[in-house]
Amino acid sequence: MLNISASYTDLYQLTMAQVYFKTKPDSTAVFDYYFRSNPFKGGYTIFAGLQNILEILENLRFTDADIEYLKKHDFEDDFLAYLKNYKFQGNINSISEGDIVFPTSPILQVEGNIIEIQIIETVLLNILNFQTLIATKASRIRYSAGDRVLLDMGLRRAHATGGYFATRAAAIGGFNSTSNVKAAEDFNIPASGTMAHSFIQSYGDELQAFRDFGKIRSKNCVLLVDTYNTLRSGIPNAITVAKEMEERGDRLMGVRLDSGDLAYLARKARKQLDEAGLDYVKIVASNQLDEYVIKSLNEQDAPIDIFGVGTNLVTGKPDASLGGVYKLSEFNGDPRLKVSENIIKVSLPCKKQVYRMIDDNEMFLGADAIGIASEDKIKRMYHPFDFNKDMDLQDFKHEALLKPVMVNGKSTIGKKTITEIASFTKERLKLLPGEYKRFENPHIYKVGLSEELKSQRDKLIAAHKF
Amino acid sequence: MLNISASYTDLYQLTMAQVYFKTKPDSTAVFDYYFRSNPFKGGYTIFAGLQNILEILENLRFTDADIEYLKKHDFEDDFLAYLKNYKFQGNINSISEGDIVFPTSPILQVEGNIIEIQIIETVLLNILNFQTLIATKASRIRYSAGDRVLLDMGLRRAHATGGYFATRAAAIGGFNSTSNVKAAEDFNIPASGTMAHSFIQSYGDELQAFRDFGKIRSKNCVLLVDTYNTLRSGIPNAITVAKEMEERGDRLMGVRLDSGDLAYLARKARKQLDEAGLDYVKIVASNQLDEYVIKSLNEQDAPIDIFGVGTNLVTGKPDASLGGVYKLSEFNGDPRLKVSENIIKVSLPCKKQVYRMIDDNEMFLGADAIGIASEDKIKRMYHPFDFNKDMDLQDFKHEALLKPVMVNGKSTIGKKTITEIASFTKERLKLLPGEYKRFENPHIYKVGLSEELKSQRDKLIAAHKF
Repeated sequence: MLNISASYTDLYQLTMAQVYFKTKPDSTAVFDYYFRSNPFKGGYTIFAGLQNILEILENLRFTDADIEYLKKHDFEDDFLAYLKNYKFQGNINSISEGDIVFPTSPILQVEGNIIEIQIIETVLLNILNFQTLIATKASRIRYSAGDRVLLDMGLRRAHATGGYFATRAAAIGGFNSTSNVKAAEDFNIPASGTMAHSFIQSYGDELQAFRDFGKIRSKNCVLLVDTYNTLRSGIPNAITVAKEMEERGDRLMGVRLDSGDLAYLARKARKQLDEAGLDYVKIVASNQLDEYVIKSLNEQDAPIDIFGVGTNLVTGKPDASLGGVYKLSEFNGDPRLKVSENIIKVSLPCKKQVYRMIDDNEMFLGADAIGIASEDKIKRMYHPFDFNKDMDLQDFKHEALLKPVMVNGKSTIGKKTITEIASFTKERLKLLPGEYKRFENPHIYKVGLSEELKSQRDKLIAAHKF
Repeated sequence: MLNISASYTDLYQLTMAQVYFKTKPDSTAVFDYYFRSNPFKGGYTIFAGLQNILEILENLRFTDADIEYLKKHDFEDDFLAYLKNYKFQGNINSISEGDIVFPTSPILQVEGNIIEIQIIETVLLNILNFQTLIATKASRIRYSAGDRVLLDMGLRRAHATGGYFATRAAAIGGFNSTSNVKAAEDFNIPASGTMAHSFIQSYGDELQAFRDFGKIRSKNCVLLVDTYNTLRSGIPNAITVAKEMEERGDRLMGVRLDSGDLAYLARKARKQLDEAGLDYVKIVASNQLDEYVIKSLNEQDAPIDIFGVGTNLVTGKPDASLGGVYKLSEFNGDPRLKVSENIIKVSLPCKKQVYRMIDDNEMFLGADAIGIASEDKIKRMYHPFDFNKDMDLQDFKHEALLKPVMVNGKSTIGKKTITEIASFTKERLKLLPGEYKRFENPHIYKVGLSEELKSQRDKLIAAHKF
């Protein structure tokens, strides 16, 4: 699936790269990847996509077809010859994939030759923005679902092949399994599934459809019970087939509700199943679920064991995008920033480090401090925009979040499985106090600047004043 | 980019396929692709993605790795041997790619062996739902923009590699060019681009940055003028460079505004440029544009020549998905439908044809009639749900919309260029009266059923009553 050549970029990256190539080919730069607000009006974000980016960068080349194509675009021969031999050889420091991240902080810093690192902007934003959005959405759904099983079934509503990455990110955010066979295969995520209405329609006879399915799919068999009438037809037929399966030494795994009032139907179905001695048969529910519907179902104590989530998960509704950006913070060793009339949109200069403050209980304190990479311990941090606010950090332990993950174009971290990344996310979320996880007006996690970084920024802003 | 194997599907397709394989391997079926409501609360939808689907289906195979993987999932050896030789050999009738389509009508009908056509459901929905969503969004933006130039620049915010298909669909819906090099290359869409803030930041000196850029990018040069101060720095510096370019016999193509009040800044910038004798320099505007913002800018007569649209285009915000479905309408020659307590969700049985009514001026009348494929001319159509409404069609010409596009797994239509498909969309939109195109409460295009289809459906509903 992953067949991305270096022409998977915006044309202007190449246009700018050619100017650099002609005027200052040996320049170096630092770019930061970060975003300005948490998606879904939430209190945190889950960073995902790093491992894909490292793999893509290790193998990023322009194909011969790419070079032929670019000849039509007024690029000069010497630059095209450069592109033919293009290889990303930069360094990357990054927060770990699956970690919790917050607005303003650099999540990933790219350092290297300006031409090499300009060209990768688009693919980096394309992969990281999307997976970070979906991993965050998934973790919110996980938060609502508690310990119940979550199944991703969104491929049919995903943005074409983006669905492949949606499944990966959903697993990082806390989903247990997916319907997406290709992604399950490549990322080693458990695959699961039930049955479609069309299967039962093809028989015309629901009981016979269930019977055949139960015989041939004797393990992990889930019967869809709402094709005709859930309580008067689907559940009674499922009970009949479950009993027949018992006689063969098999067990019906579950029934699936896909329409109607899920709380009401789940309760009634549970009762019918239990009265038939089938308390082991699980109830799967689907139909436009998201974190809010699942929260409501749980508040009603709906006896649902497994939630199947599709559209709202894989499209990251309602946001549908994360506005992560890639901004220049150093050029040939000099600090750089993007000014703006809006202070919130001013970027941070210099090569940086991010420190997460840890409280006495080893939990996250609720404060990340951004300093210049070369700084020692940050004793006090300052609100990036509100000049009244600062915070004393002397009493707290901290953890440096940005770590080398690529040196000279080679990944320096071992390949982690999705299970490992998802476990890390789960562990990190345990360290984040609940007030940052709630959906309604979550507490705002503090992100501040060291005095030195703030003063560098403010000096540069003043120098650019008009 | 397009490297989709047959395991790009939901696991349940394979589970169901195995049951068909074991119990009724030679059965045939008909499935319809359709949706239940226009996206964006609009009055119409643009169908896109057909050509990709035909190409994918012609080449759809399970790889050896897929088969190895599926062995872990309790599939039996004889079925895995079938999958190893799987080839789609069905027939497809479809509305033409780029045509205007409406809720309820089958857009595409697949006919063939039940196992073959079950497995393709996921990839078909995945590709068609997304491109249809984006082509529709693009056509709405085109409607707002009138004759101005539209540039897609959304790749960085697209859903990972789904962005490749977003660019294709945007071109069908009316976009002139894209920043996405890979998609431009593969789909022969014009590529274009401007410059980034980081380029100017790297210089620190805006004038020098513009100078170098204007020298090396002497054609199609667009300068980004809002890095420091649009009217006091960006435009004056762009004017200086434009004059220098004139001396070399070149012409600055444009300036780009990416922040602030675009209407105000465009007017002021236009005045400054015109006063400098640069009336040929175009103004490009970007920054979270969509059809509504562009409509407002045009209502204010903002002198903007080119709109760059990103996030809202490629993510299909605010909908982010089209709920197209794939429903069984015939099995072994017998009509089938999906019943539901909600009549709107009941599917239509039988192999069908869709007729578009044409008025005396050769425009679309605003009525599509769905009949059974074998029916003669439809004289009267009936509202699908409202039993009071019908419409006499005797006086109107009609056009049959579903045409064979694939026979025995081979495409029977020549490969069209994106330019050709986009031109077709443009022509078809000209035939659609304006009241269906407006954004606020658009007129509802009528879609009705023939008497025979309606009676078939109602008979089947009655047979399934509980």
